[in-house]
Amino acid sequence: MNVDSLLEDFRQGKLEAAELKRQLLGNSIAEAGFARLDHHRLLRKGQAEVVFCQGKTPEHVAAIFRELAERTGRVLGTRAEPAHFEAIRHMPGADYDPLSRVLRIATRPLEPVGKVVVVSAGTADMPVAEEAARTAEHLGSAVLRRFDCGVAGLHRFLSVLDDFLDARAVVAVAGMDGALPSVVGGVVAAPVIAVPTSVGYGASFGGLAALLTMLNSCAPGVSVVNIDNGFGAGYMAHVINAQCEAARKG
Amino acid sequence: MNVDSLLEDFRQGKLEAAELKRQLLGNSIAEAGFARLDHHRLLRKGQAEVVFCQGKTPEHVAAIFRELAERTGRVLGTRAEPAHFEAIRHMPGADYDPLSRVLRIATRPLEPVGKVVVVSAGTADMPVAEEAARTAEHLGSAVLRRFDCGVAGLHRFLSVLDDFLDARAVVAVAGMDGALPSVVGGVVAAPVIAVPTSVGYGASFGGLAALLTMLNSCAPGVSVVNIDNGFGAGYMAHVINAQCEAARKG
Amino acid sequence: MNVDSLLEDFRQGKLEAAELKRQLLGNSIAEAGFARLDHHRLLRKGQAEVVFCQGKTPEHVAAIFRELAERTGRVLGTRAEPAHFEAIRHMPGADYDPLSRVLRIATRPLEPVGKVVVVSAGTADMPVAEEAARTAEHLGSAVLRRFDCGVAGLHRFLSVLDDFLDARAVVAVAGMDGALPSVVGGVVAAPVIAVPTSVGYGASFGGLAALLTMLNSCAPGVSVVNIDNGFGAGYMAHVINAQCEAARKG
Amino acid sequence: MNVDSLLEDFRQGKLEAAELKRQLLGNSIAEAGFARLDHHRLLRKGQAEVVFCQGKTPEHVAAIFRELAERTGRVLGTRAEPAHFEAIRHMPGADYDPLSRVLRIATRPLEPVGKVVVVSAGTADMPVAEEAARTAEHLGSAVLRRFDCGVAGLHRFLSVLDDFLDARAVVAVAGMDGALPSVVGGVVAAPVIAVPTSVGYGASFGGLAALLTMLNSCAPGVSVVNIDNGFGAGYMAHVINAQCEAARKG
Amino acid sequence: MNVDSLLEDFRQGKLEAAELKRQLLGNSIAEAGFARLDHHRLLRKGQAEVVFCQGKTPEHVAAIFRELAERTGRVLGTRAEPAHFEAIRHMPGADYDPLSRVLRIATRPLEPVGKVVVVSAGTADMPVAEEAARTAEHLGSAVLRRFDCGVAGLHRFLSVLDDFLDARAVVAVAGMDGALPSVVGGVVAAPVIAVPTSVGYGASFGGLAALLTMLNSCAPGVSVVNIDNGFGAGYMAHVINAQCEAARKG
Amino acid sequence: MNVDSLLEDFRQGKLEAAELKRQLLGNSIAEAGFARLDHHRLLRKGQAEVVFCQGKTPEHVAAIFRELAERTGRVLGTRAEPAHFEAIRHMPGADYDPLSRVLRIATRPLEPVGKVVVVSAGTADMPVAEEAARTAEHLGSAVLRRFDCGVAGLHRFLSVLDDFLDARAVVAVAGMDGALPSVVGGVVAAPVIAVPTSVGYGASFGGLAALLTMLNSCAPGVSVVNIDNGFGAGYMAHVINAQCEAARKG
Amino acid sequence: MNVDSLLEDFRQGKLEAAELKRQLLGNSIAEAGFARLDHHRLLRKGQAEVVFCQGKTPEHVAAIFRELAERTGRVLGTRAEPAHFEAIRHMPGADYDPLSRVLRIATRPLEPVGKVVVVSAGTADMPVAEEAARTAEHLGSAVLRRFDCGVAGLHRFLSVLDDFLDARAVVAVAGMDGALPSVVGGVVAAPVIAVPTSVGYGASFGGLAALLTMLNSCAPGVSVVNIDNGFGAGYMAHVINAQCEAARKG
Amino acid sequence: MNVDSLLEDFRQGKLEAAELKRQLLGNSIAEAGFARLDHHRLLRKGQAEVVFCQGKTPEHVAAIFRELAERTGRVLGTRAEPAHFEAIRHMPGADYDPLSRVLRIATRPLEPVGKVVVVSAGTADMPVAEEAARTAEHLGSAVLRRFDCGVAGLHRFLSVLDDFLDARAVVAVAGMDGALPSVVGGVVAAPVIAVPTSVGYGASFGGLAALLTMLNSCAPGVSVVNIDNGFGAGYMAHVINAQCEAARKG
Repeated sequence: MNVDSLLEDFRQGKLEAAELKRQLLGNSIAEAGFARLDHHRLLRKGQAEVVFCQGKTPEHVAAIFRELAERTGRVLGTRAEPAHFEAIRHMPGADYDPLSRVLRIATRPLEPVGKVVVVSAGTADMPVAEEAARTAEHLGSAVLRRFDCGVAGLHRFLSVLDDFLDARAVVAVAGMDGALPSVVGGVVAAPVIAVPTSVGYGASFGGLAALLTMLNSCAPGVSVVNIDNGFGAGYMAHVINAQCEAARKG
Repeated sequence: MNVDSLLEDFRQGKLEAAELKRQLLGNSIAEAGFARLDHHRLLRKGQAEVVFCQGKTPEHVAAIFRELAERTGRVLGTRAEPAHFEAIRHMPGADYDPLSRVLRIATRPLEPVGKVVVVSAGTADMPVAEEAARTAEHLGSAVLRRFDCGVAGLHRFLSVLDDFLDARAVVAVAGMDGALPSVVGGVVAAPVIAVPTSVGYGASFGGLAALLTMLNSCAPGVSVVNIDNGFGAGYMAHVINAQCEAARKG
Repeated sequence: MNVDSLLEDFRQGKLEAAELKRQLLGNSIAEAGFARLDHHRLLRKGQAEVVFCQGKTPEHVAAIFRELAERTGRVLGTRAEPAHFEAIRHMPGADYDPLSRVLRIATRPLEPVGKVVVVSAGTADMPVAEEAARTAEHLGSAVLRRFDCGVAGLHRFLSVLDDFLDARAVVAVAGMDGALPSVVGGVVAAPVIAVPTSVGYGASFGGLAALLTMLNSCAPGVSVVNIDNGFGAGYMAHVINAQCEAARKG
Repeated sequence: MNVDSLLEDFRQGKLEAAELKRQLLGNSIAEAGFARLDHHRLLRKGQAEVVFCQGKTPEHVAAIFRELAERTGRVLGTRAEPAHFEAIRHMPGADYDPLSRVLRIATRPLEPVGKVVVVSAGTADMPVAEEAARTAEHLGSAVLRRFDCGVAGLHRFLSVLDDFLDARAVVAVAGMDGALPSVVGGVVAAPVIAVPTSVGYGASFGGLAALLTMLNSCAPGVSVVNIDNGFGAGYMAHVINAQCEAARKG
Repeated sequence: MNVDSLLEDFRQGKLEAAELKRQLLGNSIAEAGFARLDHHRLLRKGQAEVVFCQGKTPEHVAAIFRELAERTGRVLGTRAEPAHFEAIRHMPGADYDPLSRVLRIATRPLEPVGKVVVVSAGTADMPVAEEAARTAEHLGSAVLRRFDCGVAGLHRFLSVLDDFLDARAVVAVAGMDGALPSVVGGVVAAPVIAVPTSVGYGASFGGLAALLTMLNSCAPGVSVVNIDNGFGAGYMAHVINAQCEAARKG
Repeated sequence: MNVDSLLEDFRQGKLEAAELKRQLLGNSIAEAGFARLDHHRLLRKGQAEVVFCQGKTPEHVAAIFRELAERTGRVLGTRAEPAHFEAIRHMPGADYDPLSRVLRIATRPLEPVGKVVVVSAGTADMPVAEEAARTAEHLGSAVLRRFDCGVAGLHRFLSVLDDFLDARAVVAVAGMDGALPSVVGGVVAAPVIAVPTSVGYGASFGGLAALLTMLNSCAPGVSVVNIDNGFGAGYMAHVINAQCEAARKG
Repeated sequence: MNVDSLLEDFRQGKLEAAELKRQLLGNSIAEAGFARLDHHRLLRKGQAEVVFCQGKTPEHVAAIFRELAERTGRVLGTRAEPAHFEAIRHMPGADYDPLSRVLRIATRPLEPVGKVVVVSAGTADMPVAEEAARTAEHLGSAVLRRFDCGVAGLHRFLSVLDDFLDARAVVAVAGMDGALPSVVGGVVAAPVIAVPTSVGYGASFGGLAALLTMLNSCAPGVSVVNIDNGFGAGYMAHVINAQCEAARKG
Repeated sequence: MNVDSLLEDFRQGKLEAAELKRQLLGNSIAEAGFARLDHHRLLRKGQAEVVFCQGKTPEHVAAIFRELAERTGRVLGTRAEPAHFEAIRHMPGADYDPLSRVLRIATRPLEPVGKVVVVSAGTADMPVAEEAARTAEHLGSAVLRRFDCGVAGLHRFLSVLDDFLDARAVVAVAGMDGALPSVVGGVVAAPVIAVPTSVGYGASFGGLAALLTMLNSCAPGVSVVNIDNGFGAGYMAHVINAQCEAARKG
């Protein structure tokens, strides 16, 4: 944040007090009436804000996308309905995947780096797994998908084990008993982000069973995100991948 | 229950009305003051009543053991403390295992039949696994123990896989993430009785996490007993084994 | 799995390395694009994979049924909607039961063996009980249904008690207070698979009350499956029955 | 409360304003420094206040007992420790039962009326069942105890069924699966007060399982009190019995 | 049940073995194909079975009503939808209340006896309160309704206090904080049946908050039924009232 | 309540007994058939009753609004649907906000006093925040809104910090992690009323996560209302503001 | 915080850059090795930090007390054990109350202002109620205690109603059913801070029942703090009282 | 795993079948009687097994430490009691920290690489935070501790913000409201591993509140481990750091 140079500029009269305060106290926040867009985040976190579309009107989403697209050239929306896509489909580079409900604008290309593997247990877990994959891809990671590898048929996972050897980060998605990340974490050296899904019935209690399984995983190197939070896992995996890339570049 | 022959005997005067009523309405229950021993169970269920020692005084337990030992020659007590053992150690054939807290009297020998495998995840799960093993053994099953085979190190389980091939029933014991029965159930043909244990901390919530994992297991042929209920699992496994034995004998 | 003979064949040049690896590491998994069918399971578990239809498109289900039907001649689908049936009704031997939502193809006949009794508490529990019954039947068990025998009217259960005497396994289905398996387990010698249902309201919490009742059953020889998991109970009962049949045949 | 006659007395000058206000607004509450004894309750509810001893010092309990004993001649304390008894044992008519932890003073005799049956499932439930029985007895009910009649051995309950025929109210106490009240309520005509106990382990969750079972009982004429609340059930049963007695006397 | 005279008749040849077994083992249960009607209940419990209509088809409900109406002249159905009424509206004495969803047939008149008061907290609790009231009325109790008396406006309850003085039983219905039964139970001498309702939002968790409040009520003489179980409370209140009436008649 | 002067008037014959009883026992409650309006509340609490519209028919709501509007000139309804507005829109001063679902009639103007700040975390929390704001405004508080200030972008909150300096009370609204009130409470001197919202998914469990966060806030001067209870928070904030205003006026 | 004048001073050379940064970024935090004391809080919140003693060593607590006492002359510690008191009893003005576990140093006197009423339900709730009272007193509020006023004996509360008329804030403490705040909030005009306590057993679940009751209170003007958090309630009540006092003084 | 070269060696007779099977099926597991040590893990995961000491006897722990120390020169034990340390203190390089309960042997030195920051909220969270720090250090990470930075005093965290700029991974530890990771995650670019602690009381429910807060964090780049699982978070942070180091080295 370079507070020292800002203060020096201010003392030398190169910077107005108002601007100094704006820089120091962060009101670089665009006031667009209904939502405070946080452009500062791009600087702080290295990523622009992501739009959680659920519960927002299509018009609202479109306005945010327009604003962010102009500044950054890449916008990601999650939990979007087809109506959200309709509201932005005229914008250049707009794209929508109904399975994962991921909405994107990408006019500024990114070269994929590193390797993130997304592995999932059952076909019903695919929407969440795909959300994770698309999130990491959008942010700049190269992603390998390995879906439908649940532990009830252990051979399915073992047969693709080699694909995990050079992964920088792994996302493991499972509903019902949520046992996949324990098995993956016991075998794989990369950090594993576990995602419980709400797939199941009865005593799965909307994903609570899988969540608890993952939090209690006996395998080290496993951490967990919220139920059905494919986005959060993909983001976390990308951040790890990006940290590695930054280390590689020195 | 042979109601017909009882009625016939009664009509022919071979049986008193009092005895007929006793047979039909089940008051073959010994009234020993504080507890109603259910000797009928031996007939109905093929097994004598098992004594849950927790919360009973040593004197109380000793009295029940004496009563049952006289009639059946084999008595099983669970969750027994050393003080319970002290109260019966003078009786012939008395035996106590402090790890599993199983208390036994066996003056009538039994030839072990069939095969029950008890597999457990971590060393901390051993007390529950051993309770299951001793219960099945006491009731007459041949038991093979395979402890410390948790899925976080998958090779441990895979290296003993052959031991499960001819099992008539499997008991799978695990705490923390409770993932072991899902892996076992995905590979093994025998019915699997899953036992969650209270081993763990934090979000294991005293075994709730492992319980939910097991109830939501994606592997078919898995059913579940209460948390830490090694006795129940060993009993169930023996009952399955005994059914097979009965079928074998025709 | 006969690893020894495979290795011997390989050493003698009768087997290619690729095939050996395929055999050992289990990639006999058919890759059909969206789902990895696990044909290996038929060998390992003695049963082909069962299709959980809920959340799958009719086209997806139809493709899986076609694939499995060709190989095994018997396919079972659970939680199927009428639309799933429409997609396969042209296939030979297709059959659908709207009450239990069980979808089947059976072109290869099976002689029913042994005896599984399915007992249920109330009329509202019938869909789950019927799912259990049809599952066990499809896999090859002879099944006797005893529905509407809840313990609030004890005479209903007592009047059919004789039917349980020669059962190899019993499935007991109940919602609300879930007390039926405790009563059944106290009287019947066969292993009892308890199925809680989500029938009820208020403090039944979607079947949680019945689930907890069954897990805490005082009767030995009772184990439990997930809420509304008629399939799982029917499968488990059949596995026990099949184990007995195998023992009978030596 | 006879407001009309009080007002008339006041208008005619027979009653002071202060007294009228005291009568109307209920400050007949004895201020003993630390606790407000509610003597009014005897009038309103037909019973004096009962002392919940847990967490109170022996001195505190003794002071309350002395105060109540003087006014009413009968005092009941629940959840009392031996130290509480030590503090009042010199008072005439003092009596303590360590099993149920009930502490009593009874210098004014009561003729027992009607019939309350207290039935319990296991020996471990006896403390709660005895608390219920002693509470009802202290308040004036004739009580019949039928302990150790759990439904896992149905014959035990069926063999004492005749004892319930002329009961005015039944208290049914059970831990673990809590199934007893459902069976009792299905057979018995009297109102059943169900008491879950904290007896059990694992998924009994301190009595929650039994509580939910009882709340979801399919048998009509069953209502429930708090876990381990033998006092509350005994009180409720007595109140019902007393209502019947009042009706009988016209 | 007169087992002795049955046995005597049997010995003397006046009774067939088949009939004796039928009498002893209770298969006086009408087998109507889909549901086992329990006519025995009328003898045992003094009330015919009540029909829980939810989840049953209109045809199914109509068949049960017809069967029961012929035998008893009075049938009660709960949680009935208008379609259920349509299916029976042609039967004599059919009647439906959409608020409480109570469906009735009453061709045999009953003289109301005693007094049951049903008090409720808010207008949203009225459906449950009315279900309680109609249930008690149908079974033969005289019922007084006192709705909309929540404790947040204490004057509302206090102003109708006199109505509770001669009640034989009180039903107190409340959602949200569920505090009403504690206040009622602190003032009223009659036994109070507390009914939590699912009225509320957020941390009411579908009535769980009110349920816990009532189970923890500090006022003695209060017991609780399931959330929204107006029927259960009305039944319980009537049973108490009927016990009093029986005592009155000697 | 001036009991003394009422009694004096009564003694002097200026007041009838009936009226005295009415005053003392509070039956100043208008009986409008279906709902007992509590006009007394205006005196006791300083505010008229607020109408919880959810679950009430439009006609029912309209009747209550008419009754209250005549007496007080200001009526507030919460959780109102458009149909409720339709039923009162002809009344003078009627007004409806679809976002917060607040329905109002205000024919008697109020001068806004003091300062209440309503701060919220995300755009999805706006309905609840707006309900809080409108409630406080309707009751007479001046309200400042600061929406979309979640702690994940701390600069957003810090940039508006000055607005909180002279607040008399603050309402802080947040879903998901519910962390906003902790941050606000750590910096702001005014009392903070925290409102968890049901915004979120998965392990937010309908707002439970945010509720627990707020109850466990490390910042002092924070108290909490029910999930989504914007009304309750706005009311509480106004009451605090009104207490200050009363103190200011002496 | 006067950012403008700080910047001006800095530009004019009156302030060093280091000091400016310190002021702006808040490192006025005393680093005492193990704990970062937040002296800034006194400025920001108007109150010094309060010491949560539980889990801290007596030496640790003594060091913090010494540090705070020197700067402010008044220190408050909560959940203190006697050993904590021993460690500071030599300091001037040290004081400890074993019931509420409140530890204080007060060498700088404060004139009590306004009025806070603390009302509690049962004698077992007194420790929490006293913690609330002592907290508010220590911070400068005049406090009136009204303990043992539970709603099961409504007269107890009604007899002290007048004491609440001029309260600026009320703290209402209750365990078990937690119904007291609903009754208080329905009658009293001041804001009510509800404190659930862990007093109870069984389904009180450590205070959860009382917590839910209070969150669902139908009475407006009630907000809630954590279970057993007497400190938090007393702090909140004082803050409200202090806001009123500030308004009074203009 | 180099399956190809193993097979080639086997075909050429360089490898025995037994050894090939051992290599392929993983029975490189040392059987030490009571525990199966998984030396394979060092190869697979890049880290030797870590010893969870809780519930193990000192002798048992000593034996495992000896075995692992010989092979790897570095052993880590968590949740160790002083008695565990006593049993190994004679071994070279043994070391114990009573606060974090971490037990270590380090005879093989490691050069610390990268940067992991461990930040915690309150002093009571220090044991968990220190466990995380020591774990990461033992595995080879350079660790910076920033304790006592809770968000209720935001300045404490903001004053150390610069320390996070070049972190490769951050561990954020908090109990009670668990809000710290949301604030950290909103500002910091590195991946954040959130650790809820059981610090708190009442509605913290043993850390559940903090756990839910963290799972619902609005800040991206945050994932969560089990309650009090400092070890798991330190391990995960180190794995991320190690991945970065591997990438840096190419």
